[in-house]
Amino acid sequence: MASSLPTQPPHRPEVPEVVIARLPQYVRILSRLLEDHVDVVSSQQLGEKLQVTPAQIRKDLSYFGRFGKQGRGYSVNSLLERLRQILGLNSYWNVAVVGVGRLGRAIISYPGFTPDGFRLVAAFDANPAVIGDSVGDLKISPMDDLKDMVARQQISIAIVAVPAEKTQEVVDLLTDCGVRAILNYAPITPQVPGGVRIRNIDPVISLQSMTYYLSGSDNR
Amino acid sequence: MASSLPTQPPHRPEVPEVVIARLPQYVRILSRLLEDHVDVVSSQQLGEKLQVTPAQIRKDLSYFGRFGKQGRGYSVNSLLERLRQILGLNSYWNVAVVGVGRLGRAIISYPGFTPDGFRLVAAFDANPAVIGDSVGDLKISPMDDLKDMVARQQISIAIVAVPAEKTQEVVDLLTDCGVRAILNYAPITPQVPGGVRIRNIDPVISLQSMTYYLSGSDNR
Repeated sequence: MASSLPTQPPHRPEVPEVVIARLPQYVRILSRLLEDHVDVVSSQQLGEKLQVTPAQIRKDLSYFGRFGKQGRGYSVNSLLERLRQILGLNSYWNVAVVGVGRLGRAIISYPGFTPDGFRLVAAFDANPAVIGDSVGDLKISPMDDLKDMVARQQISIAIVAVPAEKTQEVVDLLTDCGVRAILNYAPITPQVPGGVRIRNIDPVISLQSMTYYLSGSDNR
Repeated sequence: MASSLPTQPPHRPEVPEVVIARLPQYVRILSRLLEDHVDVVSSQQLGEKLQVTPAQIRKDLSYFGRFGKQGRGYSVNSLLERLRQILGLNSYWNVAVVGVGRLGRAIISYPGFTPDGFRLVAAFDANPAVIGDSVGDLKISPMDDLKDMVARQQISIAIVAVPAEKTQEVVDLLTDCGVRAILNYAPITPQVPGGVRIRNIDPVISLQSMTYYLSGSDNR
């Protein structure tokens, strides 16, 4: 080969964030199929459930190696196992909840975390009136204990459900303590340092992304 | 022109869903800038806040016509107004909440809907024990009243916060009644007929989309 040709980088290409963001959907769908004793699934079937094209499914999965055989579909069990491994879901992640108002309590009561790899192990609030209260199995701790508990319980993920005007401050504190992934429920987009991931759960943004399609064409 | 050349379609190109999904983020950021009395914003500044490239910002906005002038930035006020118009946010949308358990109550108490164009005008639950109760200004109605109230109050959007095993049934009922956009909080992906939009709010999926980045490279 001529040396002027571009050479392949020695490591895998970076996987686009939009592909990573779809993988949990694959995991959910494959888990359901496994529960229903389905052994093999085609990219066509996966595409219908995910509302993307079969070609997109094959392209998404091709980032991670070869899955399935041409025309034979994917083994539900092996694909699920491999995707769980890729996403780091083969062991539990310890999670802290910060802000235990009405929303924080609803989050703590949500039964879906544990079966899917997340253990809520600590809850914090700034309001002295609720510190020491229990929500489910969790006792609410003061913010002053956050740093110690994050270190001691190896918490790398936090769910933040505090008022919007307090959110950036709480996010700063968490990242200072070594938390590397944050799920934020306040209707703002907090800034995080490089290397820290954040996702925002915001019902208004979700609603506004649908009204476009409800509006008459005169709105467009 | 030779007739064999491809001709431009008479209507605008379809806007990718991912672009539409970003527009509410623009609206939020521009609203904050307006509050802060900022008159002009560059694609560079918008890109930093949205964590996309300035080129992507310009491309997103180019779907909707010409905004701003080369090298002069965008007028915050005109861009905001135009995007609100595009998204159909210049008048209120009436919204129903179905399922008034702990999560439904947290949703109803969320103060962010009304300032951003959504009025929660009805709440429904299947549990006779809570029917007639008030949550904030809303009285909880029985499911039997849903069809009439959706028609009478011109409700085209519903927020569904019922248990996973009831969700598809409730979604079917809503779409039968003419609801055209659904925000679902259950950890499943309900099927909807063509022409109906659905968004799923699922903290587990959001968490799982971050663990990839937390995992050691041996997981990849």
